[in-house]
Amino acid sequence: MTGRVQTAVVGVTGYAGAELARLLLRHPRLHGAPPVFAGRVEEKDLARGGVPLIEIHPQLAGDNGNGNLKQEPFSWELLAERGVEVLFLATPHEQSRAWVPQALARGLRVIDLSGAWRLTDAANRAIYAFEDEGSNQAAATQAQAVYGMPELYREKIAGARLIANPGCYATSVILAVKPLAAAGLLDLDHGVIADAKSGVSGAGKAPTPKTHFMYAADNLSAYGVFTHRHTGELLEQIGIDAGDMVFTPHLLPIPRGIFSTIYVRFKQPLTRSAVSRVYEEFFAGSPMVRFHDKTLPQIQYAVHTNYADIGFQLDASGRRAVIVSCLDNLLKGAAGQAVQNLNVMLGWPESEGLA
Amino acid sequence: MTGRVQTAVVGVTGYAGAELARLLLRHPRLHGAPPVFAGRVEEKDLARGGVPLIEIHPQLAGDNGNGNLKQEPFSWELLAERGVEVLFLATPHEQSRAWVPQALARGLRVIDLSGAWRLTDAANRAIYAFEDEGSNQAAATQAQAVYGMPELYREKIAGARLIANPGCYATSVILAVKPLAAAGLLDLDHGVIADAKSGVSGAGKAPTPKTHFMYAADNLSAYGVFTHRHTGELLEQIGIDAGDMVFTPHLLPIPRGIFSTIYVRFKQPLTRSAVSRVYEEFFAGSPMVRFHDKTLPQIQYAVHTNYADIGFQLDASGRRAVIVSCLDNLLKGAAGQAVQNLNVMLGWPESEGLA
Amino acid sequence: MTGRVQTAVVGVTGYAGAELARLLLRHPRLHGAPPVFAGRVEEKDLARGGVPLIEIHPQLAGDNGNGNLKQEPFSWELLAERGVEVLFLATPHEQSRAWVPQALARGLRVIDLSGAWRLTDAANRAIYAFEDEGSNQAAATQAQAVYGMPELYREKIAGARLIANPGCYATSVILAVKPLAAAGLLDLDHGVIADAKSGVSGAGKAPTPKTHFMYAADNLSAYGVFTHRHTGELLEQIGIDAGDMVFTPHLLPIPRGIFSTIYVRFKQPLTRSAVSRVYEEFFAGSPMVRFHDKTLPQIQYAVHTNYADIGFQLDASGRRAVIVSCLDNLLKGAAGQAVQNLNVMLGWPESEGLA
Amino acid sequence: MTGRVQTAVVGVTGYAGAELARLLLRHPRLHGAPPVFAGRVEEKDLARGGVPLIEIHPQLAGDNGNGNLKQEPFSWELLAERGVEVLFLATPHEQSRAWVPQALARGLRVIDLSGAWRLTDAANRAIYAFEDEGSNQAAATQAQAVYGMPELYREKIAGARLIANPGCYATSVILAVKPLAAAGLLDLDHGVIADAKSGVSGAGKAPTPKTHFMYAADNLSAYGVFTHRHTGELLEQIGIDAGDMVFTPHLLPIPRGIFSTIYVRFKQPLTRSAVSRVYEEFFAGSPMVRFHDKTLPQIQYAVHTNYADIGFQLDASGRRAVIVSCLDNLLKGAAGQAVQNLNVMLGWPESEGLA
Repeated sequence: MTGRVQTAVVGVTGYAGAELARLLLRHPRLHGAPPVFAGRVEEKDLARGGVPLIEIHPQLAGDNGNGNLKQEPFSWELLAERGVEVLFLATPHEQSRAWVPQALARGLRVIDLSGAWRLTDAANRAIYAFEDEGSNQAAATQAQAVYGMPELYREKIAGARLIANPGCYATSVILAVKPLAAAGLLDLDHGVIADAKSGVSGAGKAPTPKTHFMYAADNLSAYGVFTHRHTGELLEQIGIDAGDMVFTPHLLPIPRGIFSTIYVRFKQPLTRSAVSRVYEEFFAGSPMVRFHDKTLPQIQYAVHTNYADIGFQLDASGRRAVIVSCLDNLLKGAAGQAVQNLNVMLGWPESEGLA
Repeated sequence: MTGRVQTAVVGVTGYAGAELARLLLRHPRLHGAPPVFAGRVEEKDLARGGVPLIEIHPQLAGDNGNGNLKQEPFSWELLAERGVEVLFLATPHEQSRAWVPQALARGLRVIDLSGAWRLTDAANRAIYAFEDEGSNQAAATQAQAVYGMPELYREKIAGARLIANPGCYATSVILAVKPLAAAGLLDLDHGVIADAKSGVSGAGKAPTPKTHFMYAADNLSAYGVFTHRHTGELLEQIGIDAGDMVFTPHLLPIPRGIFSTIYVRFKQPLTRSAVSRVYEEFFAGSPMVRFHDKTLPQIQYAVHTNYADIGFQLDASGRRAVIVSCLDNLLKGAAGQAVQNLNVMLGWPESEGLA
Repeated sequence: MTGRVQTAVVGVTGYAGAELARLLLRHPRLHGAPPVFAGRVEEKDLARGGVPLIEIHPQLAGDNGNGNLKQEPFSWELLAERGVEVLFLATPHEQSRAWVPQALARGLRVIDLSGAWRLTDAANRAIYAFEDEGSNQAAATQAQAVYGMPELYREKIAGARLIANPGCYATSVILAVKPLAAAGLLDLDHGVIADAKSGVSGAGKAPTPKTHFMYAADNLSAYGVFTHRHTGELLEQIGIDAGDMVFTPHLLPIPRGIFSTIYVRFKQPLTRSAVSRVYEEFFAGSPMVRFHDKTLPQIQYAVHTNYADIGFQLDASGRRAVIVSCLDNLLKGAAGQAVQNLNVMLGWPESEGLA
Repeated sequence: MTGRVQTAVVGVTGYAGAELARLLLRHPRLHGAPPVFAGRVEEKDLARGGVPLIEIHPQLAGDNGNGNLKQEPFSWELLAERGVEVLFLATPHEQSRAWVPQALARGLRVIDLSGAWRLTDAANRAIYAFEDEGSNQAAATQAQAVYGMPELYREKIAGARLIANPGCYATSVILAVKPLAAAGLLDLDHGVIADAKSGVSGAGKAPTPKTHFMYAADNLSAYGVFTHRHTGELLEQIGIDAGDMVFTPHLLPIPRGIFSTIYVRFKQPLTRSAVSRVYEEFFAGSPMVRFHDKTLPQIQYAVHTNYADIGFQLDASGRRAVIVSCLDNLLKGAAGQAVQNLNVMLGWPESEGLA
C-alpha cells in the first residue's frame, strides 16, 4: 500500500487513545492526512460536529493544526465517506468483538487494541466471557487475527487484515521470555514467575477507589493474582502450561511504565554471553527492542519511548536468571505497538514515527 | 468535666474521620472509653451490628482492641444509651446544619468539622446556600457557635457548647496573618495575598476526575480562584475586606499537607526581630504552633503532626514580608484541631494526645 | 528490670535514628528519662554542648520537652555518668563491630541496628568483609548475639545482652516464609523467590545519584540481584540453601515501606484454611504481626506503624502460593523492631509504645 | 543561512543537555548532521574517543543512529575541524563568561543557556559576582547579547551572534506579565507578586540534600525568597522596580514543570475579554505560546512540550487578576527555547522540530 493512507481511531478518549492520536498526527508517512476520530458524541456536541480533540486531550493543542480536529459521531458511513482504510479500535473488549466483524466485512483493515481477539485457545478466552463465544462469525474472525507483536510475527502482520494488538503486561513478559523459550533453554518444570509492576495509567481513566491518588500514591498493591486476563496471552505466546507460569501484577505509584521481574531456570548451566547471544539473535532486525548486555533496564529510560528494554542477571551456577523487562504501557504496551504494527502492515520502516 | 467522658463520631469514613478515630482511640484521657462511631449503615451490614472500623480503615487494626469497634447505625437514642456527652461531626455541611440544633437540644456538646457554622456574616455564608439560612433556629444556633481555633479563642472554647472547627486552608492562613493584623502592622491597602497549596486528601475520598492519580500526580493546578469557600473565614477572622484579600488554592501532588505562601506589606519598616516578637507574643501559651525564628518551614516536618509551622522572610526595606505556614490538613487542619478543641473544652492540657 | 531505665542512642542522625528517637521519647515506660544521644560532634558545636536534636530532625520540635535535647560528643564515660543501661547503635556495620565488644565489656546491653552481628555462618558474613573476622573477640561476641526478631526468638531476646536487630528486607521475607518452612510445608526443590520492593529511605540519607529525586521518582529499578547483603539472613533464618532462594530488591518511588511478593510451592496440595491456620498458630502471641486471612496487604496501611502485614493467595491446585508481606522499613524493619526488642528484653508488654 | 548547518553542544551531561541533544538529533532541518558533543572527558575515556552519548543518557539509545555519538574532549580546534557554526553552551555561568568571548572571536554564533549574559544592568548582575565584571571584554560581549525570548525579541534574535537563553522561572513569569505591562495596564504601585513552583529537575543533577528523594518527595519548600538570581531578568524584561516585584520560588515534588501564580492589579477595571485581547494580540505570531481564553492551565499538559501555557482569572471588580503560567522547565524553560532561538536565528519556522 503506498501513497496516501487514511486511518481512523475509535476510542481516542482514553490514555492510549491520546498517545495514538499524538503518534498518528506526527507520523511522517501520514502527513497531511490526520486520522478520522470517531466515537459516541453527546447530544449537546452534535451541533458543533463533535468534540474538539484538544478539549479531550489539551496537550495536543498548539501550533500544529490539531485545533480543527474533532471526535465525530461514529458511523460506518462516515468512515466510508472519508476513505478510511485502516481502523484503530481503542475500545472496550465487547465493543471490539461486535465491531471487528463488521469492519472486516466492509473491507477495512483493523488494528484492535482491546483483548477481544488476542487468544486462540477458547479455554484462555473463558475469562472474558464474550457473548458471541462459540459463534461461527467469532470463529471466522478469530481465524483471521494475527497477534500484533512484530518481533514474533512480522511476516504475518504484513499480510494481516486484523491485528490483535497485545496487552501491555503481556508484551513486557513475552519479549523477555520468548527468546529463551524458543531456544529450548528453559526448565519449565521449575516454572516461570513474572512479577510485574505497572503505572496507574494501566488502570484506565475512570475514577475509581483504586485510581484515587490517595490509594495509588505512596503505595504498592498486588491484584489479579493467579487470575489476570493477560495470563492467557503469556501461555499461548510463550508456549507454557498454566501450571508452570505465575504472573502477578502490581499497581506502581507512577503514571506510566511497566517493569517485569522474571524468574527462570535453565535446563543446563549457561554463560552470560551464551544467554546474551540468544537475545541478540532473536532481536536482530527488531528495531524497537533494546537488549542491554551489561546492565538492567529501568522504567525511567523506557517511558515516553516505544522501546522494550530487556536485560538479565545470571547467578553463579548459571542455572538461574532474573530477567528485567521495561516498557511504556501506553506506547510499546499499546499505542506505540499499534503504530509499529501499522508500519509493518503497510510495508513502511518498522520504527517510522516511533524512534 | 472530669472522670470518664464519652465521645461519639459521626462520619468516620473519610480521611479526617480516620485521623479523628486514631487520635481519640489513643487519647490518654479517654482510655477505656472508645468513641461511639455512628453513621449510615447499609442493610446488609445491619445483621452484624454495623461495619467493623478496621474494614473502613485497615490501618487501625492490630494489637489495640480496635478489632471489636463498629460504625453503628446512627440514632439519637444510641448516643443517649451510650451516655455520649461530646459529639464530633465529620459530616457534609448540610447534614451538620440539620443535626447540630438537635444535638444541642439534647444537651450534647458538639465539635463540628464541617463548614456549617463557621461564618457569622450572612454574606460570607451565601456561598454555601444553606437551606435553613435565615431561620430563627439557624440564627440561634449560629449565636452559640465558637470558631474553634484555640490560638484565638481559647477562653470561649472552654465554655462552648458548639465548636465550629475551622477549615484547613483557613487555619493555615489565619494563624500566619492574624498576629500581624491584630498588632495593627499590616498595610491592608496593599492587600494580603495567600497562595495556598494542599495535598490531595483535602479533595476528599470520592473518586473524581480531579482525584485520579493521573490528574493529581506530576501536576499542579489552581482552583476556586476568587471563589473558594474558605475565603469567608479568612475575612472574618483576620478582619479584612474582601477587596483586600486574594486567596488562591492549588492541588499539590502529595497525599497530605498544606503550604501557604502569604504576601503582606507593613505600614512602616520593621526589623526581623520586631516581627518575630509579635509572633512569639501572640503564640505564647499556644503549644500547637511552632514559630520558626530563623528558617522557613516545610511541609515534610508538619505532616503527621498537629503543629502549625510558621516562619517568614523580610525584604531589605523592612516593608514587605513573605510568610510561610505549613500544617497537616487532616490534623491541625481538621481532626487534630478538633481534639485540641476537645482538650480545651474539657479543661485538659491543650496538647494532650497530640504532641 | 524495673524502675527507671536509661537508654542511649548512637547514630540518631539517620532516618531510622529519627524514628528511634521519636519512639523512645514517647515510650510510656521511659517517661521522664529521655535517651542520651551521642555521636560525633563537630568542633564548632562543642561549645554549645552538642547539636540540638531538633536541628537534626525538625519534626521532633514542639510542645514536648525535646527542645533541650542534644546529640552530645560520644564517650564511654558519658554513658557511664548518665547511668546508661541499654545502648542502641544505629551506626555503620564496621563501627558496630568495633564498639559492641567494648559496650558488652562495660556491662551495657546492646541493641545493634546494623548488620554487624546478624549472621552466624562465616560464609554468609563474607559479603561484609569485616576487618575483625576470625578474631577470638569477634567469635565470642557473635556467640552472645541473638537475632532480634521477637516472633522467632522471644525467649532468647528476653535474656540477651546483645541483640542483632534484623534487616528491613529480611524481616519482611522471614516473617512471611518462616511459618511455612517451620511447618515443613515447602517444596524447597522448587525454590523460594522473594521479589521485594523498598521505599527510598531504605537507601539511606546520603545524597547519591540513586537517591536523587530525578532517579528515584517515576522510576523502578532492581539492584543487588543475587548479591544483596540481606540474603544471608534469609538463608539462616528460613533454613534454606543458597541455591534454593532468589531474593531481588527493587527501589520503589515512595518514601517508606517494603512490599515483598514471595513465590513458594508446597510439597502437597493445601487448602486456604490449612495455610491460614499455619500462620495463625505461628503468630499467636505475636502482637506486631497482622495476618490477613481474606485480603492481600498493601504498603499504605503498614507505613507509620510497627506492624508486619502478611497475606497470601493460593492457586487452584493448592500447590503454589503467592505471599505478600508489607511493613514500614524504618519501623518494623528497623527502629520499631528495636523498641519491640527493648520491650521484650525488659519484660514489658511487647507492643508497648508501638501499637 | 541555508543548507547544512553544523551545531555543537558543550555540557550535554545535565538534564537540559539531554533534552537539547534529543531535540537537535531529531530536528528535521539538521537531519544528517548530528551536533558535535564536546566537554571534559576523563583520562580513562580518551582511549575510546570520549564517552558514548547513550551511556550519559540511556534514553537516547535505540534504532536512531545515536549509538555512535560521543561526548568528545573539547577544543576549539575540534569545533573548527567539524565546521561548527552554532555553539550551544549548557555550561555553568562562569564557564560561559570565559568561553563566549572566545567563541565569538572565532566567528561562532552562540546560544548560551547559562545566566552569564542575560542581564544588562550591572546592579542586577551583582548577585552572580562574575570575575570579569567591569572588564572591557565583558562589556563588549554583553553589548552583543540578545535576550533569547522570541516572543519579545524575534527580530533581534534573527540577527544575533550571541543569544542569552532565558532562565526557566524568568520565562514563565515574563511571558505572563509582559503583555499586560507593555500595554500599560498594571498598577505597579500595588506590585506584582510571582509565586512560582518548579519541579526538581530545575535544581540540577548533582545529588544534594535538597535533591534527595526523601527531601523533595511529599514536600514543598520555598527558597531564595527576595534573593533568587532570576529576579533581575524579571525586572529588566518586565520593566519594573525591584521594590514593586516579589518573586518566590518553591521546590515542587515532581520531576519537571514550572507553575507560576502571578498576582497583579490593574490601573482601572477591565473586562475579561479586554484582558484576553491584550494577550491574544501580544502573542499573535508566537507559535510556542498557548493562551487559554477560558480555563487555567496546568503543569500536566505543558510538560514534554515546548509550549508556555497562559491563562487568568479576573475578580468581580475587574481590578485584580490571578495569572497562571505553565511550562516545562527543561524545554520552553531551557533546551526547547534554545532550539526555538536556533530556528529564529537561522530563518527557519519558529516551531520547527518543537510542535
